[in-house]
Amino acid sequence: MHMWTAEEESFMRLALRLARKGIGNVNPNPPVGAVIVDNGEVISTGYHKSYGENHAEREAILKALSLGKRLENATLYVTLEPCNHWGKTPPCTDLIIESGLKRVVVSTHDPNLSSNNGISKLRNTGIQVDVGLLEEEAKRTMKFFIKSITTHIPYITLKYAATLDGKIADQSGNSKWITTELRPIVHKLRSQHMAILVGANTVLEDNPQLNVRFSKGHSRNPARVILDRNGRVFDGINELNVFKNDAKVFVFTERSIESIEALPNHVQVFNASKPDSILKKLHEMQIDSVLIEGGAEMFSEFILYADEIYGFYGMKVLGKGRDVFANLERSIDSAFDFRISRVLVSKSRSEFLVVMKRCLQE
Amino acid sequence: MHMWTAEEESFMRLALRLARKGIGNVNPNPPVGAVIVDNGEVISTGYHKSYGENHAEREAILKALSLGKRLENATLYVTLEPCNHWGKTPPCTDLIIESGLKRVVVSTHDPNLSSNNGISKLRNTGIQVDVGLLEEEAKRTMKFFIKSITTHIPYITLKYAATLDGKIADQSGNSKWITTELRPIVHKLRSQHMAILVGANTVLEDNPQLNVRFSKGHSRNPARVILDRNGRVFDGINELNVFKNDAKVFVFTERSIESIEALPNHVQVFNASKPDSILKKLHEMQIDSVLIEGGAEMFSEFILYADEIYGFYGMKVLGKGRDVFANLERSIDSAFDFRISRVLVSKSRSEFLVVMKRCLQE
Repeated sequence: MHMWTAEEESFMRLALRLARKGIGNVNPNPPVGAVIVDNGEVISTGYHKSYGENHAEREAILKALSLGKRLENATLYVTLEPCNHWGKTPPCTDLIIESGLKRVVVSTHDPNLSSNNGISKLRNTGIQVDVGLLEEEAKRTMKFFIKSITTHIPYITLKYAATLDGKIADQSGNSKWITTELRPIVHKLRSQHMAILVGANTVLEDNPQLNVRFSKGHSRNPARVILDRNGRVFDGINELNVFKNDAKVFVFTERSIESIEALPNHVQVFNASKPDSILKKLHEMQIDSVLIEGGAEMFSEFILYADEIYGFYGMKVLGKGRDVFANLERSIDSAFDFRISRVLVSKSRSEFLVVMKRCLQE
Repeated sequence: MHMWTAEEESFMRLALRLARKGIGNVNPNPPVGAVIVDNGEVISTGYHKSYGENHAEREAILKALSLGKRLENATLYVTLEPCNHWGKTPPCTDLIIESGLKRVVVSTHDPNLSSNNGISKLRNTGIQVDVGLLEEEAKRTMKFFIKSITTHIPYITLKYAATLDGKIADQSGNSKWITTELRPIVHKLRSQHMAILVGANTVLEDNPQLNVRFSKGHSRNPARVILDRNGRVFDGINELNVFKNDAKVFVFTERSIESIEALPNHVQVFNASKPDSILKKLHEMQIDSVLIEGGAEMFSEFILYADEIYGFYGMKVLGKGRDVFANLERSIDSAFDFRISRVLVSKSRSEFLVVMKRCLQE
């Protein structure tokens, strides 16, 4: 195993910071960052800005060349194995070879079997390639990509807002303002995920907008996925907020598609209602990430598929009320393979967030 | 207002550290620490070690005198106003005056109106007395004392262990091992509080020991308080663990006391079942602090009286199960005046603790 120097690590950290700028804009591509270093100095940087645009390493190399820099002795730091295939853009390996770069440092291998021979191609032309620097961090930045490429279903984040006693609404169904201060984090999650999934009850009862607000630098609204077994939302298509802007809406239902009239162009209907069929279909539609936003039925059905859980808690107790996982019936001995990755307390100290990640069973 | 120097603050911090050593051993007295400083050097220290023993300032002065130190130019730092009355020990003011100390620095006034003229007595003899150094910290160390002296009911800490969805037991009543790693904190709480309160259901269903384990330096078991409206626990007095060691047991019941036979000496029975009568009675019995440990009925009844809440959460979801505040029926708009004072995540990252303190309404 290669021993990395602190300097090498600092260059890759810069590349990772750049990569993160693409999160939410490049999907279903992975966010990637690149830094070119010559003689201990950063001479160019780049990152994948949005789907269809240049890859990070192409961006950094073209920028260096346009500045008249020579790359014969330079090293490229890139957070993902360079691609060796024609997609929306030409193979990055060819450009790296042409540019004359001496060495390439890569965080992590491409999990995509159709494009992951980039490293061997570079090595075959005599370029020194070292792999594994800050690999775990790099994998975290591209968790959506890795999950969907390797499992053929999207990355699933389940997000609920509950009282201290696990209620998402009181007895009269009121669920507003359980958490308010931490709402910007919800909007950030929405800006990062390609789709938001809700049940028909949530759409009909709360009439939510499910758009991205208060999140700087992001204006793209995620696709909305509605699980509506009986096809009730179609009757309110002109009133319901989820249908109101131009973001795509995918409705999964058991109702016959022929019985539904006059759908706007941005609404698509599929006959499926089981979580695994829905998730496979979403993967086919190139959705790499889904945020499950409610309600209790959806939480209860999709928790089995969740990769990450964002549990927001407000300083309230209700006693009687609607349970966050109302439809589950588990015993205390049931396995629940999540570990806390982050806890955050709001400024006024009246709300907190627990982020939990699925871990392999021990 | 006096401006304190960093040096003065460091001496009072030492006194506060000493004070904390008495927590759990001095009740219903407050824990107090004292430091004597001459010419910028600490020449003696003391703290109130256990109920009935010397007060902190007496301990520090006697230690200094036994070492042959002269106190004419020395300053005494003490976390609470020195007492001016005969209790289990003589008035500390007299000893301070006799010892010839030049100056006394006090964190906080004695909230006890029957003994709080210590400062004026010292000032009347010409001793310089400055008050208010690290006052908030000092008040925190003696929160049990301040609450019970000023309100005539004990300080109430409510402690529950729940799943992420607010369940304290699954459908079959199983509640074991929701949290395990953070259990030492529960035992520390028990060692600090003078009494633990549980409902009869908890005693009969779980047969808990409610003693202090895994808490270094503490062996005193708190009194057990059982709320048992129908007087069911008396039938199992030889089998139930709560009756098994020598710690006092107070049973509050609506059952006629005459109907109960052959009570061991350490068990006392009272005819009361409303929270406020129970708490007033416990105050009369010199109980300054009560830890509410379960179950759902007790949590639902005593949350109104809680000064502090320790919410332990384990990485589990149950769906159906026993709610932590099962008997409450609140709406989402109900006020709940607690703020988070601390969040702690267990080492394995599979449990967390949220500590919440009651705050004044805004």
